[in-house]
Amino acid sequence: MGKQSIQFREPPHIVSAASVVGKKEGEGPLGSLFDEIEEDPMVGQASWEEAESALQKRAAKLAMEKAGPGVPPVRYLFSGDLLGQLIATSFGVMDLKLPLFGLYGACSTIGEALMLSAMTVQGGYSDAVLALTSSHFGSAEKQFRYPLEYGGQRPLSATWTVTGSGAFVVTHTGGKARITGATPGRVVDYGLKDSMNMGACMAPAACDTICGHLDDFGRQPSDYDAVITGDLGSVGQTILLELAKKRGYDLKDRHLDCGMLIFDPEEQDTHAGGSGCACSAVTLAAHILPKIERGEWRRVLFVPTGALLSTVSYNEGQSVPGIAHAVVIEHC
Amino acid sequence: MGKQSIQFREPPHIVSAASVVGKKEGEGPLGSLFDEIEEDPMVGQASWEEAESALQKRAAKLAMEKAGPGVPPVRYLFSGDLLGQLIATSFGVMDLKLPLFGLYGACSTIGEALMLSAMTVQGGYSDAVLALTSSHFGSAEKQFRYPLEYGGQRPLSATWTVTGSGAFVVTHTGGKARITGATPGRVVDYGLKDSMNMGACMAPAACDTICGHLDDFGRQPSDYDAVITGDLGSVGQTILLELAKKRGYDLKDRHLDCGMLIFDPEEQDTHAGGSGCACSAVTLAAHILPKIERGEWRRVLFVPTGALLSTVSYNEGQSVPGIAHAVVIEHC
Repeated sequence: MGKQSIQFREPPHIVSAASVVGKKEGEGPLGSLFDEIEEDPMVGQASWEEAESALQKRAAKLAMEKAGPGVPPVRYLFSGDLLGQLIATSFGVMDLKLPLFGLYGACSTIGEALMLSAMTVQGGYSDAVLALTSSHFGSAEKQFRYPLEYGGQRPLSATWTVTGSGAFVVTHTGGKARITGATPGRVVDYGLKDSMNMGACMAPAACDTICGHLDDFGRQPSDYDAVITGDLGSVGQTILLELAKKRGYDLKDRHLDCGMLIFDPEEQDTHAGGSGCACSAVTLAAHILPKIERGEWRRVLFVPTGALLSTVSYNEGQSVPGIAHAVVIEHC
Repeated sequence: MGKQSIQFREPPHIVSAASVVGKKEGEGPLGSLFDEIEEDPMVGQASWEEAESALQKRAAKLAMEKAGPGVPPVRYLFSGDLLGQLIATSFGVMDLKLPLFGLYGACSTIGEALMLSAMTVQGGYSDAVLALTSSHFGSAEKQFRYPLEYGGQRPLSATWTVTGSGAFVVTHTGGKARITGATPGRVVDYGLKDSMNMGACMAPAACDTICGHLDDFGRQPSDYDAVITGDLGSVGQTILLELAKKRGYDLKDRHLDCGMLIFDPEEQDTHAGGSGCACSAVTLAAHILPKIERGEWRRVLFVPTGALLSTVSYNEGQSVPGIAHAVVIEHC
């Protein structure tokens, strides 16, 4: 395999998936597909951060329940979120009492979690692991932007952080979808500094990973039924298609973006699309994976994308680099 | 292997290590052992965060240089730091142009990075990987406590964040130290809320991982030349020894703590000891690993410890849970 990618000799299976989302996501185009829609933005908790933790715990438990009794017990957990020091994860998974590998890949985290899960299962380190992530509109706005009460205007290039959590049980066998390859991404920085246009910041990283993946595997976009990025949104999509074309790959009739699938920008005032760790995770669990399991799609390149910024780096005038991790998921 | 641990059938080797530290660390008991001592707290950069990134880049490059030309090129990078959204890492490793698995385990991060590095190498996913982490007194105080200019008084239970970065190249063969086992830790919360007494917050997690490890491997503390935690400090050490005794393990004549090794609390006014991701990483690189390589120690249990808090969780009245990851390193 090429210099950046992994081809799994004994592809691990995604035996179950769970998606728990908020009210707005439930009202969007994928609304009927999610496992659970939580109407209360606080999820009965005292803060947005605790609400996000509660979503993560619920998705984790649901995915393990859905895996059923025939699946070996989950031994390790790969999880992360957007908040400083991963507090949604630390407080969310504590009750599960599972060894935790804490991950940070911004909104690409579920890609990182799925790659490491597959590497762990094929490597024989565990018969079953859980890949998990979450985001919450309230906790993310508080972390990265303005207090909600301030009512700040959002430019059209801005995205809307998805409230929810997605969880996946990865094992040796079972189910109708398996992870056959992975291309971990590099940090890519084009020097862009606009945190309200994260799609543009992440598009070069998405291009780097997708083109690196196609180079490594010697494939064309047409070898995939879909190439699905995480949360580039409409602005980032245009840039990705242009950049990939310059690298010799025409993604136009293959590219989809979870951020553009999860909301209706006209009806829901979400501007460029959805974002957040949960955006690609719940779209995979509720929409992409079932299509693969039914055989409507035979092979998909799933490429969650992350914008690597903090309020500190942003306020100190640093650019917003991006990262994207690609996972090949196939029908079986 | 027991329910939480991994025993490596073909133990990956730590073929090289690098430690880059600040002035205060250079004046401490381990001062003469570090590869590089940087006198300028800003490392010639414009901010503490950029300074920390510069340390990380320098340690990474030095470890790869020290590995020498006979070692396969590093293919993947496992790295993380303490700052919100891992900005020290994102901006530190960008120029290396290596695929990045971003990790967060608070001050236990180098344990997480070494475990995943060993799993990746034995799993055949890469012939060489780099495990890396950093912390910086200035960026950590700004992130977690008070502006330095404020001159806040520090209680005696407080620790001092180590400025530095440690890096390790892990491969199939070479060198005189190898990773033979690992026990990833769980999030453990005893409900303590004092962010100025992180040793007490982390001691239960250290106990959980160490005792789980000894149970899983069917070993006693005497099967190790040393059991070395990350940054419990003097206060946390007392608690760990008591808790482990209740679990049936007497660690008294085996336990060391990197936080207590790196500073002289009397001379250097560091109170309970050193802390930060770099504390255990640079102590491993400069002090522990050379002892193992020379055969003075045949087998060590290295257990970096992390306190899982953010200013948000702390200010919202949440407790400070801990996590600890154990890595078995043996002379070969």
